[in-house]
Amino acid sequence: MGVKKLKKTANQDALPVKLIPLGGLEQIGMNITAFEYGDSIMVVDCGLGFPEDDMYGVDLVIPDVSYLEENIDRVKGFVITHGHEDHIGALPYILRKVNVPVYATRLTIGIIEHKLEEHNMLDITTRKVVSFGSTITLGDFHVEFIRTNHSITDSAALAIYTPQGIIVHTGDFKVDYTPIYGDAIDLQRFGELGKKGVLALLCDSTNAERPGFTPSESTVGETFVSIFEANRKKRIIVATFASNVDRVQQIINTAYRYGRKCVIEGRSMVNIINTAIELEYLKVPENTLIELEELKNYPDEQTVIITTGSQGERLAALSRMAGGTHKKIVLGPKDAVIFSSHPIPGNEKAVTKIINAIFQKGADVVFQDAHVSGHACREEIKLIYALTRPKYAIPVHGEYKHLKAQAKIAEQMGVEKENILIIQSGDVLSIKDEQIRKDGHVQSGVVFVDGLGVGDVGNVVLRDRQRLADDGIVLITFAMDAENRVIAGPEIVTRGFVYVREADELMEDIHMLIDDTIVEHFEKNNPGGRNKLKTSIREAVSDYIWGKTERRPMVLPVILDIE
Amino acid sequence: MGVKKLKKTANQDALPVKLIPLGGLEQIGMNITAFEYGDSIMVVDCGLGFPEDDMYGVDLVIPDVSYLEENIDRVKGFVITHGHEDHIGALPYILRKVNVPVYATRLTIGIIEHKLEEHNMLDITTRKVVSFGSTITLGDFHVEFIRTNHSITDSAALAIYTPQGIIVHTGDFKVDYTPIYGDAIDLQRFGELGKKGVLALLCDSTNAERPGFTPSESTVGETFVSIFEANRKKRIIVATFASNVDRVQQIINTAYRYGRKCVIEGRSMVNIINTAIELEYLKVPENTLIELEELKNYPDEQTVIITTGSQGERLAALSRMAGGTHKKIVLGPKDAVIFSSHPIPGNEKAVTKIINAIFQKGADVVFQDAHVSGHACREEIKLIYALTRPKYAIPVHGEYKHLKAQAKIAEQMGVEKENILIIQSGDVLSIKDEQIRKDGHVQSGVVFVDGLGVGDVGNVVLRDRQRLADDGIVLITFAMDAENRVIAGPEIVTRGFVYVREADELMEDIHMLIDDTIVEHFEKNNPGGRNKLKTSIREAVSDYIWGKTERRPMVLPVILDIE
Repeated sequence: MGVKKLKKTANQDALPVKLIPLGGLEQIGMNITAFEYGDSIMVVDCGLGFPEDDMYGVDLVIPDVSYLEENIDRVKGFVITHGHEDHIGALPYILRKVNVPVYATRLTIGIIEHKLEEHNMLDITTRKVVSFGSTITLGDFHVEFIRTNHSITDSAALAIYTPQGIIVHTGDFKVDYTPIYGDAIDLQRFGELGKKGVLALLCDSTNAERPGFTPSESTVGETFVSIFEANRKKRIIVATFASNVDRVQQIINTAYRYGRKCVIEGRSMVNIINTAIELEYLKVPENTLIELEELKNYPDEQTVIITTGSQGERLAALSRMAGGTHKKIVLGPKDAVIFSSHPIPGNEKAVTKIINAIFQKGADVVFQDAHVSGHACREEIKLIYALTRPKYAIPVHGEYKHLKAQAKIAEQMGVEKENILIIQSGDVLSIKDEQIRKDGHVQSGVVFVDGLGVGDVGNVVLRDRQRLADDGIVLITFAMDAENRVIAGPEIVTRGFVYVREADELMEDIHMLIDDTIVEHFEKNNPGGRNKLKTSIREAVSDYIWGKTERRPMVLPVILDIE
Repeated sequence: MGVKKLKKTANQDALPVKLIPLGGLEQIGMNITAFEYGDSIMVVDCGLGFPEDDMYGVDLVIPDVSYLEENIDRVKGFVITHGHEDHIGALPYILRKVNVPVYATRLTIGIIEHKLEEHNMLDITTRKVVSFGSTITLGDFHVEFIRTNHSITDSAALAIYTPQGIIVHTGDFKVDYTPIYGDAIDLQRFGELGKKGVLALLCDSTNAERPGFTPSESTVGETFVSIFEANRKKRIIVATFASNVDRVQQIINTAYRYGRKCVIEGRSMVNIINTAIELEYLKVPENTLIELEELKNYPDEQTVIITTGSQGERLAALSRMAGGTHKKIVLGPKDAVIFSSHPIPGNEKAVTKIINAIFQKGADVVFQDAHVSGHACREEIKLIYALTRPKYAIPVHGEYKHLKAQAKIAEQMGVEKENILIIQSGDVLSIKDEQIRKDGHVQSGVVFVDGLGVGDVGNVVLRDRQRLADDGIVLITFAMDAENRVIAGPEIVTRGFVYVREADELMEDIHMLIDDTIVEHFEKNNPGGRNKLKTSIREAVSDYIWGKTERRPMVLPVILDIE
């Protein structure tokens, strides 16, 4: 298939449009992309990321938006594609610095508002609901919201009309002809846009390695019926993603059909489901939803518990049930636990741990597949290319291997190889005269959030944590008088190194080594002063410990000077 | 299907036989099981385990063998089923305490000897090669080695003849009718034993959740041919398990067929392959294997690199190639990398990270499946039950969910439900008069190996490391004279907590808080002395930090007393 000549939508006298991803291309999550033209900057999505295993103590990561802060006067707004954490989760942090209006569809705004409320930010921020098919104006950009399907309702693709042509951003999407809530993805509009001429397509790559099509969400409903049928005598517990409103709808529907009452358990799920009920995205048959406290009033085989924790999250409700620490729900042989989810890569072990614990409580785990993905597989991605026929393909949403997989698809679909651009966060793409090229780089990266601190844990602190985690710390303190005599200590305190009560000899040796090092230092007339003395002690003790144990604890000498 | 009445092999006047697993039932790995009768104890396998993610700094775990140490005079020997780390890896540590002969097949002994040599233990230990079909005597036990198939050559099942009947232990196994080296599993012998009467079957549960049969190792050879065919113009790099000699044989065979030279890269693989070549378990066509240094003498498309690191191990050869830190091998667009392995649960993310890095170097990753499992799937497990027809089933080798899955199979195969025993490490099974029942418990557990230290890192040290990893440490030191006046300090030093240069205010507040706490303490006349003062400071500072940051660093006050 060839690529059609783009129609004349670009203005040849205009400035270049710049496309600047500030996150989301090195990992799954933390999606945020800026579009810039003259005095207008608009930003698509504002997601958080999850820390890597070696980012000890870090709760979450958010994008470094220095570039937006530096250009704050030009930033017109955030346009959000859907209500998942990796697309909205950084808003409470970023809006504090770059407080501009947020545009999204109704459910997405509902979820964002709940989040901002938790951060006491409702009064100081502006949110605007946009309906599918309508177009908003952000400076020189016009942005049209196009209905898609995904594992959360009200997901949108964006057609971004720039002075240099139309850019289509799919957001996270799949093609679902029979969705649970609302209509199927607006494929006609993708086709119309293709006819107008699409300069560039930014398309979801998450499932680009998978052949075929992702099944419809509604197929999961049939699975639930067969599972409920087979477990008529048991209490049923279904674990799924807190934000998958359609999934919860299907569980509730099945429960209703089998005359069971439903409990929603897990804070994040309760929040989102309440929002969905308020906004009428979820329809609950009368007398079907009950409170956790009412559970005891019904026989087990007439209840269903819908819960968070399907990814093995340590503090989530399912984890507490499996571990026997849940205050209200005790698992036992009368329970059948269904995982309506697949483990996200990296969570496999945590999920397995919970499955083992559930079995050990005597409960059953149902392995029948009760999940479908929310992302487009290869044939769906091809469909979007066939409809939009972009001149340029810029794969987004995925790790490098996913972006590469989409690049292959784009090539198969007729995009010229040199027009397929795999980019990195911080790269600047300059778009002019129907040409796109890499043109420089802006600051980007991750900011660590740890407890209440945003950005106060950096790489130095993390490296220290990694070292402390591996081998602990050996602390050496002593006091010296003005004549450089040790008048108290050295005290040696260790944490995370060895069990000291069984390491007498080692501790004694370290004591002697410190004494010797001090003597030696002053025999040389105190060269370099206290700092050099500390360094000598650190090196001597570190080397000694390595030789004896092959460990490298942090060795920290503190000298108190007595006047 | 019913269970046949056992023939009269048991001696009704005899003592009970005891079966005591000391590891391997709560996790994959660390397999070790003791069998005891009167004055005879024999032990099957002596494996290591890998640390959980939260066991910071721990290199590996080995079983707690206190029970064997306490009964050392009765221990007759270790019988090893095959040469994988989770069956032999703890030998260098355990033999130091329980130095008894080790019995295994030829390749297994070869691998064990290499390991003992690295620990300088060849001279002080006794190893005995046993051939398939022969029986050794260990006190009152007779143990017959039966050929099986697995992902390492020379794997054995054991028929353990006890005064209370025959116990069959499969070890890790699969049924491979067309293995690469040696013969297929000796199914006839399993049948014969079944006819004699098997009291209990201890059978590998690893793949008990998977339906069907595991394909033959030889099917992978066909896959290699098609991959080599498709990548005629590229250098080929194959990553696989270091110990899978048959896999390496097939890669070498395919390389030879395509006129390519092979390099083995990665220390553990070089060791095992050398042992396998010496013992003639691996046959290398002349002039096929070359040294790494010779690689540069051949065009890329005439070479193959066989390497370790298929599980994403951070320090393995493949990881260094992907990260660009390998001294001799530089990856680029001319390379096709084949993963001849599946990620072991828990390693998915590490493997993905390497795949991304390989793509980023411009090399290709071949996703064609070039691996088969080494463990029996459901139908193979059924076959072993059908042949042995045990009265008792004791599932081994797997996590709880795998043991449960095998229990289901055993029930399907006609084992009485009450005769299927899922046990835990330390459980004692007492076997007498054709009855097996749980009868007490012995000490068991894991011992941490960290660097050169074996057992000196315990739970206290680990908890400290976890805390240090999460939030770091705040160290407070000051010196006091005999009148309880602070004469130096307080000095506050933090590591892994916050970036101090940007936390001036916090540090000043902590300083003031310490001063106040000291004053308050002595206003109350020094109740509880130095320890109480330290506790007060720790609590005050911890609470303050939590309020400000929602972090809980370890707060460590050290007071130096000046006489």
